[in-house]
Amino acid sequence: MSQVFKGFIHVYTGNGKGKTTAALGLTLRALGAGFKVFFGQFLKSGEYSEIKALKTFAPRVEIAQFGRGCFVRGKPSPEDYRLAQEGWSLAKEKILSGNFQLVVLDEFNLALHFGLIPLDEAVEFLARKPLPSELVLTGRYAPPALIEVADLVTEMREIKHYYHSGLKARKGIEK
Amino acid sequence: MSQVFKGFIHVYTGNGKGKTTAALGLTLRALGAGFKVFFGQFLKSGEYSEIKALKTFAPRVEIAQFGRGCFVRGKPSPEDYRLAQEGWSLAKEKILSGNFQLVVLDEFNLALHFGLIPLDEAVEFLARKPLPSELVLTGRYAPPALIEVADLVTEMREIKHYYHSGLKARKGIEK
Repeated sequence: MSQVFKGFIHVYTGNGKGKTTAALGLTLRALGAGFKVFFGQFLKSGEYSEIKALKTFAPRVEIAQFGRGCFVRGKPSPEDYRLAQEGWSLAKEKILSGNFQLVVLDEFNLALHFGLIPLDEAVEFLARKPLPSELVLTGRYAPPALIEVADLVTEMREIKHYYHSGLKARKGIEK
Repeated sequence: MSQVFKGFIHVYTGNGKGKTTAALGLTLRALGAGFKVFFGQFLKSGEYSEIKALKTFAPRVEIAQFGRGCFVRGKPSPEDYRLAQEGWSLAKEKILSGNFQLVVLDEFNLALHFGLIPLDEAVEFLARKPLPSELVLTGRYAPPALIEVADLVTEMREIKHYYHSGLKARKGIEK
């Protein structure tokens, strides 16, 4: 197992739909292979449909949310900083524990972009490769220094989106 | 339910990692919402880790594979055509049945690209909107006529990939 897992760092970024869902798909695949997964979400909170479905696989999947249930708009509050930094501390612990073959940090890129997690410190941590877990980082606006340290980067580019016709997020499809 | 589902067509294409996994993530989310899902795979066959994990949700998820277990290289064989066309007939049946809130057709775009499914006929079928299922179509080389008829299109662009360092697909991560 330790030979298979070189602790690659994946980054899914861009303005298109599919970043969080790709991380969920990777989680499902890892669970199908019998692996243990830590699934952490920055900036989010709440029992989304995907969280409900992931819980089916407990205790092989551990879920944690480090957000206030809404995206930070404008200037983040002290509470946003506190939650994100606590989340990042926990995430590092989980990565280094060696207990998880896969660690997903959903919206991590956005947390870095907003400065909720110090970029220099995060990049320094991630550069200590190989990490004991495969790491999947999602969210818009992945900073260049993060892309530099990653092994795999996909940009999800929006070509078309029905949101522009005014449709709201629908249960089971967007949330 | 029928009001929520307008039968949007999603296309995930491009050369980056994340297309099939995004479709898997959408499947997981839909299952978490209590929906029924048909998950069909063109050009693929075999018990991948994700298929194993999806089976946890049977009978709410129905899985079918329409491939020979390897990607078509060069000229498709008569068997590739037969399997793809049988798959497409079954997929249309499942979409029109109204029994599934979500229908995923993995590698459908590639099957169109290779001419395994007639493009004109497929686009004509898909243009009969709204369909009774949300439809997710993945694979490289989505033809322009498919993009035209879709409601949501994301291009997964490869920025970096560790495959280029010669690494093979790993169980639980790529397969």
